Amino acid sequence: MTQRPFILITNDDGVYAPGIKHLWQALDPLADVVVVAPASEQSAVSLSITIRSPLHIGKIEWPLVDAKVWSVNGTPADCVKLALNAILPKNPDLIVSGINRGSNAGRNVLYSGTAAAVVEGTLHNIPGIAFSTSDYSNPDYVSIESHIPLIMQYVLDHPLPVGTFLNVNFPKNMKEVFRGIRLTRQGKEFWGESLEQREHPVEQKSYYWLGARLVQFDEEENSDIKCLNEGYATAVPIHIGDLTHHHHVENFREHFEAVVNKRAYLDVHH
Amino acid sequence: MTQRPFILITNDDGVYAPGIKHLWQALDPLADVVVVAPASEQSAVSLSITIRSPLHIGKIEWPLVDAKVWSVNGTPADCVKLALNAILPKNPDLIVSGINRGSNAGRNVLYSGTAAAVVEGTLHNIPGIAFSTSDYSNPDYVSIESHIPLIMQYVLDHPLPVGTFLNVNFPKNMKEVFRGIRLTRQGKEFWGESLEQREHPVEQKSYYWLGARLVQFDEEENSDIKCLNEGYATAVPIHIGDLTHHHHVENFREHFEAVVNKRAYLDVHH
Repeated sequence: MTQRPFILITNDDGVYAPGIKHLWQALDPLADVVVVAPASEQSAVSLSITIRSPLHIGKIEWPLVDAKVWSVNGTPADCVKLALNAILPKNPDLIVSGINRGSNAGRNVLYSGTAAAVVEGTLHNIPGIAFSTSDYSNPDYVSIESHIPLIMQYVLDHPLPVGTFLNVNFPKNMKEVFRGIRLTRQGKEFWGESLEQREHPVEQKSYYWLGARLVQFDEEENSDIKCLNEGYATAVPIHIGDLTHHHHVENFREHFEAVVNKRAYLDVHH
Repeated sequence: MTQRPFILITNDDGVYAPGIKHLWQALDPLADVVVVAPASEQSAVSLSITIRSPLHIGKIEWPLVDAKVWSVNGTPADCVKLALNAILPKNPDLIVSGINRGSNAGRNVLYSGTAAAVVEGTLHNIPGIAFSTSDYSNPDYVSIESHIPLIMQYVLDHPLPVGTFLNVNFPKNMKEVFRGIRLTRQGKEFWGESLEQREHPVEQKSYYWLGARLVQFDEEENSDIKCLNEGYATAVPIHIGDLTHHHHVENFREHFEAVVNKRAYLDVHH
């Protein structure tokens, strides 16, 4: 791509989160950039969309920089839908989401609002990259920023397979440990619940916070989880275009259909 | 499985929706069944979870039947988390979600709260089946009900591959057209947005409804979308255990890492 690319930036931490400003800072010198991001934090909303209430678009001013920024009072997927249909003059060449504060490696990608924005783009055939940092407590956005242009350019120059986006995570303590960026596979780890029961101050009943607890597994050597723990950044091509377990269909179709249609055929034909 | 199975029932249409009562009616004679479902409708919330507000559990009475029913003021995934950690005496043998009013075939499975409940179960290594009907306007729950026991028994007797659940959809006009149940592949169709702009009655600005528009594709002969249109019910094994596009990693790892690490190595080593 020789022209300046046209890029939509979004996130799930909200339009005022520091991570999205660093993403903008990394891309603004190289591309025509528009930001459309949630008006409030939308962590862990996955591919939720807002179908029962109206959506509002707001023009946002970011202090000190000349950026084109809009907010939407909805989810990351809502932001992409409104950007494509009501805000942008044309479809972007790329959707970039993040920089999320907190890991979206392993199976966290299923819950992630950051990733969901690029899932939505993938459904519209627009390439996407989700950026996150594993360093929730002390994210080093400045170090991460410096690696974003080459990854962006690579994805523009080398289209990912249909139905696939790139899920990029950066390790903790970038300054001390960073060893490079790897194209690798998804690990198994995810943030599970750690339920906390509390008593209501007035009513005689309990309520619950989901809480969070890292669910860990024996990980493959080249999984993103292992690589991140070794100080690498990881890029995983995540395929959501066809989720069928084809091998299972091939092996079990006949048997499944024989068993479950017994009753069905009885009902229909007798 | 010779003992009565222990089954958790949930949905995304809410604890008072007709579909979930028909699901209960199909399974209650055959299994020990507990219902934990959202207190209000949660369509299209995907794998959203509630991490910023507390969750409440309510005991629900369904008129005329002796059912064990709880509500949670959250998403389908929240319901499964609270069921497993605070409501059920032990993990269920199976999680069954639905019967959703509206198709979750094709790529709608990505947005579906009905499917998300069994995705959450899959992360906890509990098998799951999501049931939906394509017949939004006139769902024939009674006909669907009669097919559920054999599908349940099949999944209990023949465990699905790790990280995989079964996504079952029933066709429109069951009584007229039903031709049987097929184990088949996911299609491409999904409900996209159809943005509608309206003027606010007081403020001088617009707001938007996402709306809905069926996005259709050339579908493979054996896709769930085609089969449903031909009068079959469809069961698709959906694999969410590893979403890596492995072929892409194998083919492009070296080139990707050579290109994107140029800058990284400069930063680190010089």
